[in-house]
Amino acid sequence: MLKFDVKTTDGNARTGRLEVNGRKAVTPMFMPVATRGSVRTLLSKDLKELGVEALISNMYHLLIRPGADIIQEVGGLHEFMNWDGVLFTDSGGFQMIRKGFEQDIKENKVKFKSELDGTVFELTPTDDVELQFKMDTDVAMCLDYCPPYPAERETLEASVDKTTRWAEECRKVDGDIFGISQGGIEPDLRAKSCQALVDIGFQGYALGGLSIGEPAEKMYAMFDIADEIYPQEAPRYVMGLGSPVEMLEAIERGMDIFDSAYPTRNARHGSILTHKGSLDIRKAKFKKDNGPLDPDCDCSICSEYSRAYINHLCRAEELSWMRMATLHNLHFTLSIFKESRRAIADGSFQGYKEKFQKNYG
Amino acid sequence: MLKFDVKTTDGNARTGRLEVNGRKAVTPMFMPVATRGSVRTLLSKDLKELGVEALISNMYHLLIRPGADIIQEVGGLHEFMNWDGVLFTDSGGFQMIRKGFEQDIKENKVKFKSELDGTVFELTPTDDVELQFKMDTDVAMCLDYCPPYPAERETLEASVDKTTRWAEECRKVDGDIFGISQGGIEPDLRAKSCQALVDIGFQGYALGGLSIGEPAEKMYAMFDIADEIYPQEAPRYVMGLGSPVEMLEAIERGMDIFDSAYPTRNARHGSILTHKGSLDIRKAKFKKDNGPLDPDCDCSICSEYSRAYINHLCRAEELSWMRMATLHNLHFTLSIFKESRRAIADGSFQGYKEKFQKNYG
Repeated sequence: MLKFDVKTTDGNARTGRLEVNGRKAVTPMFMPVATRGSVRTLLSKDLKELGVEALISNMYHLLIRPGADIIQEVGGLHEFMNWDGVLFTDSGGFQMIRKGFEQDIKENKVKFKSELDGTVFELTPTDDVELQFKMDTDVAMCLDYCPPYPAERETLEASVDKTTRWAEECRKVDGDIFGISQGGIEPDLRAKSCQALVDIGFQGYALGGLSIGEPAEKMYAMFDIADEIYPQEAPRYVMGLGSPVEMLEAIERGMDIFDSAYPTRNARHGSILTHKGSLDIRKAKFKKDNGPLDPDCDCSICSEYSRAYINHLCRAEELSWMRMATLHNLHFTLSIFKESRRAIADGSFQGYKEKFQKNYG
Repeated sequence: MLKFDVKTTDGNARTGRLEVNGRKAVTPMFMPVATRGSVRTLLSKDLKELGVEALISNMYHLLIRPGADIIQEVGGLHEFMNWDGVLFTDSGGFQMIRKGFEQDIKENKVKFKSELDGTVFELTPTDDVELQFKMDTDVAMCLDYCPPYPAERETLEASVDKTTRWAEECRKVDGDIFGISQGGIEPDLRAKSCQALVDIGFQGYALGGLSIGEPAEKMYAMFDIADEIYPQEAPRYVMGLGSPVEMLEAIERGMDIFDSAYPTRNARHGSILTHKGSLDIRKAKFKKDNGPLDPDCDCSICSEYSRAYINHLCRAEELSWMRMATLHNLHFTLSIFKESRRAIADGSFQGYKEKFQKNYG
């Protein structure tokens, strides 16, 4: 069973320790996204060297290829990926509903066609969670129903109700499962959704359906609601949030766990995170720039390679630059969490956050 | 000045030590190809971990982008690439002549348009070698004139004459320079070309214009000719040869240095080198194969990842599989050289070669 202990607090912000199946992680923590069983351009060894303690894969993507049976046959996801750290899987609800291949969302079943070969899948919320455990995840996420943004209040109400009913179905499975609240940025609906999950009872609690286009301040208000309703002793997870500024606001409001493709996807598009904001390394002005990607960064890429070299590799379409940018952006993101944990333990989180955000611009 | 010492011999095969600008390598050796200043998918740290001691870049590709001035400004190629091992550069003659952008090969000048932006370059053989040193290479290769295969005897004769005249021009530059013989697979022309280079005098001697479609046995005969004519005390370099079987034949005939895109380019196309020949890791039959790429390999990829996982990453178009395949194929190729050096030192090279080739099929 998942164990979580809050260690220190600083205002509403907190540090903690999470342990599941003997695998450990300290919080606040960031999980790189290994959607299809791999963090793009990296090997598991790179992740260990970066100090990553937890990853999140996606059940939907792994179900349609290579399939749950194959993953089980080859020893499960940890073995398959050579990853001995904590592993979360997302239920894939977001993908099943959003990608235009939703066929039939009945009251208690999701039916969809694989985008790869047309195979039809029909899953109950219980099936979904069972498949996540079959794949050998440490923590399964509930199947939730995430409406688009913006959505009418009626749509949001219906999504909260459906998400709650599905959460009850998911909870029938024995294992470490996190509930996911919906409700968009409507305070009462978000509160209702959070409370319903607490009433059912999970090992951890997530916020879904955020960071999809709504104003930041309205999203922050949802963190406050979750902080109030979700139990203090349980880990709280904000799904899909990756911007450094927004993550610090969420940490300040008592959130513990984060995942996002933001640092890795941005890296592959040439967008480099630095303490003075992001820069586009592909630009001509970096051709002769002998400095590191970020002068305030101590990662292996910043110590060993120049902007000029990485700019050249971009232009020459040499694949290694994507790896360099990914290693740097992940190190940068993880360092925000390391600094946050240190600042919370010191009681100086507020000052750290403000200084970071002022530099970042 | 480049130093080279033959350490042990076994028949015509030999082990040696090469030192240039304080950088060292043992021979027979294999140089991965860093055409545009990077071995595709790898960082310099990976190369060090693999035990690579020397790389070869390409002056032509680096001249058209980012340019010799930029490379000099940012501290030269070693600094740019973060590579403190031995560095060779190819003159780019092969590219200048082959890529369809040859504009005007006068007696003593190559004129070509950049394939990237149309910039016109006009270089004498002396200019070419000077540009290689300007970029901070350890060893420059002569500009040679490589005809296609098959070519008429007249064409081959003319290419030998031009290559010899160009070699004289290249030799005007003070520095560590290797001559390159031409002459296709015509024994007398190859011998004439080799002898002309020896008469001019270089720090090392290469064979160019081979492995471009001719029968293997006829190519091997050229190694015998080179072994006889090229000085025993100088390093001998067979350019562009990458097949394990062919490299062993060349080592047996006294050749010391090799470079080829073979292991790295094949890797990126899913072709995995194993002790039992190559396999296509993309094939469906590997979907559930929990074994390593090559059961007889001790590389980090074979110890940590299965064929099933790498097959999945190929199908999911996750970039990391190319890196895995590249690391394995390079380790495999380098291990042939390590084993060859050990076998030569033991006086058992013939047996090693035969055993390897029998397994490899």
